[in-house]
Amino acid sequence: MNIWRGRHTFMAPFHRGFGAMGGMVDVSGKPDVPRRAVASGELVLQRHTIEAIRAGTIEKGEVLESAKVAALHAAKRVSDALPYTHPIPITATTPRLEVKDDRLVVTVEVKATYKTGVEMEALYACAVALLTAWDMVKKHEKDEGGQYPFARIQNIRVLEKEKG
Amino acid sequence: MNIWRGRHTFMAPFHRGFGAMGGMVDVSGKPDVPRRAVASGELVLQRHTIEAIRAGTIEKGEVLESAKVAALHAAKRVSDALPYTHPIPITATTPRLEVKDDRLVVTVEVKATYKTGVEMEALYACAVALLTAWDMVKKHEKDEGGQYPFARIQNIRVLEKEKG
Amino acid sequence: MNIWRGRHTFMAPFHRGFGAMGGMVDVSGKPDVPRRAVASGELVLQRHTIEAIRAGTIEKGEVLESAKVAALHAAKRVSDALPYTHPIPITATTPRLEVKDDRLVVTVEVKATYKTGVEMEALYACAVALLTAWDMVKKHEKDEGGQYPFARIQNIRVLEKEKG
Amino acid sequence: MNIWRGRHTFMAPFHRGFGAMGGMVDVSGKPDVPRRAVASGELVLQRHTIEAIRAGTIEKGEVLESAKVAALHAAKRVSDALPYTHPIPITATTPRLEVKDDRLVVTVEVKATYKTGVEMEALYACAVALLTAWDMVKKHEKDEGGQYPFARIQNIRVLEKEKG
Amino acid sequence: MNIWRGRHTFMAPFHRGFGAMGGMVDVSGKPDVPRRAVASGELVLQRHTIEAIRAGTIEKGEVLESAKVAALHAAKRVSDALPYTHPIPITATTPRLEVKDDRLVVTVEVKATYKTGVEMEALYACAVALLTAWDMVKKHEKDEGGQYPFARIQNIRVLEKEKG
Amino acid sequence: MNIWRGRHTFMAPFHRGFGAMGGMVDVSGKPDVPRRAVASGELVLQRHTIEAIRAGTIEKGEVLESAKVAALHAAKRVSDALPYTHPIPITATTPRLEVKDDRLVVTVEVKATYKTGVEMEALYACAVALLTAWDMVKKHEKDEGGQYPFARIQNIRVLEKEKG
Repeated sequence: MNIWRGRHTFMAPFHRGFGAMGGMVDVSGKPDVPRRAVASGELVLQRHTIEAIRAGTIEKGEVLESAKVAALHAAKRVSDALPYTHPIPITATTPRLEVKDDRLVVTVEVKATYKTGVEMEALYACAVALLTAWDMVKKHEKDEGGQYPFARIQNIRVLEKEKG
Repeated sequence: MNIWRGRHTFMAPFHRGFGAMGGMVDVSGKPDVPRRAVASGELVLQRHTIEAIRAGTIEKGEVLESAKVAALHAAKRVSDALPYTHPIPITATTPRLEVKDDRLVVTVEVKATYKTGVEMEALYACAVALLTAWDMVKKHEKDEGGQYPFARIQNIRVLEKEKG
Repeated sequence: MNIWRGRHTFMAPFHRGFGAMGGMVDVSGKPDVPRRAVASGELVLQRHTIEAIRAGTIEKGEVLESAKVAALHAAKRVSDALPYTHPIPITATTPRLEVKDDRLVVTVEVKATYKTGVEMEALYACAVALLTAWDMVKKHEKDEGGQYPFARIQNIRVLEKEKG
Repeated sequence: MNIWRGRHTFMAPFHRGFGAMGGMVDVSGKPDVPRRAVASGELVLQRHTIEAIRAGTIEKGEVLESAKVAALHAAKRVSDALPYTHPIPITATTPRLEVKDDRLVVTVEVKATYKTGVEMEALYACAVALLTAWDMVKKHEKDEGGQYPFARIQNIRVLEKEKG
Repeated sequence: MNIWRGRHTFMAPFHRGFGAMGGMVDVSGKPDVPRRAVASGELVLQRHTIEAIRAGTIEKGEVLESAKVAALHAAKRVSDALPYTHPIPITATTPRLEVKDDRLVVTVEVKATYKTGVEMEALYACAVALLTAWDMVKKHEKDEGGQYPFARIQNIRVLEKEKG
Repeated sequence: MNIWRGRHTFMAPFHRGFGAMGGMVDVSGKPDVPRRAVASGELVLQRHTIEAIRAGTIEKGEVLESAKVAALHAAKRVSDALPYTHPIPITATTPRLEVKDDRLVVTVEVKATYKTGVEMEALYACAVALLTAWDMVKKHEKDEGGQYPFARIQNIRVLEKEKG
């Protein structure tokens, strides 16, 4: 019998013996505490795309409300997308979207009273909101060769994290 | 800068009347064509976190293989996360992860023979791989106040898109 | 009658300024209280279909047990189907199905001890049970032109809601 | 009226012996044909709730766009909610929502080029859109005892089904 | 920059250079061919549990029909549970369940016309059907200490695989 | 041996009348208690496949880490796969994988502080880890006729269950 070992990567596990593979962090003993996290991110777009969002002429639908709904959905699905996360009983998700002259800015606040923090929920909801917006404006951002020379997602980060 | 405002955004639908709500783009008449898209993105991390990833001492598990598996999973779940996307029969997903001195770089190539492109699949898989890595190194990136002054996701973009 | 029109619908958000987009209701401060909701609904079917359900000759399988299982599944998936719902730790789902002479009646009771009610869980479980039954009897309800002149779902409503 | 009773329902399987359990209909030999289905349904609401939807003052967000997004999501998830359905590569989903004086009317058209029809996709998308709207206006429809004396979903039916 | 390497485990990838991490097998160039797979498995149970299943006195519901419905559901969800699988448009799933004197035997046949085989679909559907049955008879199989000295799943294997 | 037969199976529900259909066990009144379950299972493989896993030359990726990630994912998805299970807020999932000379052994420990036990979570996570490994080594286990004469999953069982 031999446990999964690889010198560089797994020396430590080797010494820790059976049970070395890690997994989800054990939060069994932690108390339920009010948690709050705010994350944000940006989707850089071309001027004419921003104008179309502002003018409400994006063919697929209303970009901001759609991205918001996708964010609400996403915050509840984090434990399904990110393998090491715990399922968390979210008590509030509040997405905010702003149209700036050269980008869309998404901010998502998530709350829960639980044993572990909700920053991954807020981060993932931001990413999904931005990708939803990108998907809705694909036609406007593609060049004649079908490439996206301009669109990009930037600055997905945690703005605040609170506990207790 | 302007925040989502009813008047600007929704004048147009008013004029378009019933049927103005849009929806999923109708690709019924499009031929099945080989499609390929490559997207990438980066997770900026502190030096000691990068060292821990390289040394294989991240407690939860092997960061690169875990992020890869999460990317494979994600590419198949795009139609569930992004409301306007079509379900696409993906024929290949190939994630690549590199550890640079100050960041993790993820590149994902997705293929399908279908009526619409797979760039959202590649983009979403990148985002999920980066968030999976972030989630695995949370403990290493948080400061004493539980904040993330350093970690951020940058540069999620489409590198290449091919059709036919 | 008026179709979704930008001006009427979105004047208000404009005045409410940033933060006007709403989201999931914040239930963070609410106590965990025993909750119970009962919903029901009906699927109107043709006489020969009802007879086939009673005779156990529906080709796909046993309609009532299948619809029941679909309802159990559905009650646990509400937060995935309805964007503004909270994930709720359901403690009981009890579906009941009756075959009447011209319709199938589904009643679902859901319980949880939580910060918000479970009526959406009961309603959604009813809808899914009825649609599962419809799907199982499609062949019996379609006319020669492949249309459904008779089948329809009626009366999905909340029968009781209890708290505390 | 008769409640689900073993003897009536299951005599037939007994005679059919092993293999009597049914399952998903085998469509392996069927050709890929253009399919289209349109379904609709209604959510009956109180006058003041309708006014709040029209005025854009529902706290959670924009009801029609949110219900539309939920419908798009739902049409892609039918094979996950209804056990006997086949996974179908949907090529278009077009939801329409109308606010009438006493109800919300949802109509969803779904298309696919496949071996089996898409009416369950259209029906399920209608049900989910209506339930999403209900969930958003819960506060407005509940009476002082927390009951829903008025709200109900009616008339979920297939308007048209086309093939070939 | 250094690519993920570990001497024992990853020598080969190291030599293969960047792009060595593998992923979903690329089936882009494969033709759509009729596929069929049959898998089976067994749940060993105590005599009194088998009698209760036969007598229809299991409290949660009808074990065989419930396990069948869970199998239908599972066959469609393989690409969500097993990371390296392709999403496959299943055209038929036919579960069969037999109650023997000391075990439950599940056999599932899955079909598709696609670029890759469906044995994982059949295997996973068997596993889920057996676990569903186990879950339904938990109370009957637990001893006074809450342990399961008897129940076990055996012999999950592929009985047949056909192509073309 | 007897195959699912209406009369035997459903006599009892007939006598129990309305309400006989069962459902999810009502755990509303049960206290939140620390729970722990450990399950294990085995995937029997050919010698050359075991050697390839040990050598790290399986083309799709690292088998043990991938199976581990799939197990983490699975433990969180039990309520979605098994219809009668309750959604449970898992606080820890720890998968262990060992490569023996003729088989892969998976052991999964799951914890939660809840009203009902977590053995189905541990069992399902084992099954999914073993199937993930099987899927990764398919090419190595198939004979020239595309059959699997050797691979099989054995001995999925609950090793320990603790409460309080």
